[in-house]
Amino acid sequence: MKQPLQPATADLRLVDVLAALADPTRVALVARLADLGSQNCTAINNDVEVHKTTMSHHYRVLREAGLTETTVRGRERWIDLRRADLDERFPGLIDAVLTSLEAPPPTGQSQSSGS
Amino acid sequence: MKQPLQPATADLRLVDVLAALADPTRVALVARLADLGSQNCTAINNDVEVHKTTMSHHYRVLREAGLTETTVRGRERWIDLRRADLDERFPGLIDAVLTSLEAPPPTGQSQSSGS
Repeated sequence: MKQPLQPATADLRLVDVLAALADPTRVALVARLADLGSQNCTAINNDVEVHKTTMSHHYRVLREAGLTETTVRGRERWIDLRRADLDERFPGLIDAVLTSLEAPPPTGQSQSSGS
Repeated sequence: MKQPLQPATADLRLVDVLAALADPTRVALVARLADLGSQNCTAINNDVEVHKTTMSHHYRVLREAGLTETTVRGRERWIDLRRADLDERFPGLIDAVLTSLEAPPPTGQSQSSGS
């Protein structure tokens, strides 16, 4: 079974990882994988309101940047977050991104004067 | 004195910040500002091997994403990292990026078997 190429942990580049994360669909997908673990791409495609072709592009960007691992099993493609590799190369980065995503948007107009 | 527009803290968006950081020149500039504090753009331009016009583009991207604050003083432009605003909205993100930048590149071929 031919498996998609993905960079070795030592070859991950910070700017590529940041660029891959700099998209609402992709960063939401990373959060989903962090939360739920390995996911079948067909299941993901059924859940998002994004065209399958566009999702394929996003999967590729994430994989080529080293954020995800794609595994082909028969006719199915599964993707998983390379959390351990990312934490090894960029300590705290994925945690900080996920925390920032989960934070409620600030109210802006009604900031308190407290610290 | 007209000052360049920059987004309020409450309006900072994670994907914009990540996109602004996803460039070797810009992320190096953020590290310089984190290290040295407020910098005169002319001094920065003299230190980097990047055309002044390209640097102007980078300053704008950083400012519009909310990473930096630009202040015009007479004929000089000074930029500073909006560290407190960024840490408030995206806790740990800038720290993680700076730590990842400072980390030596892994040797790749000679990984130990330890954890």
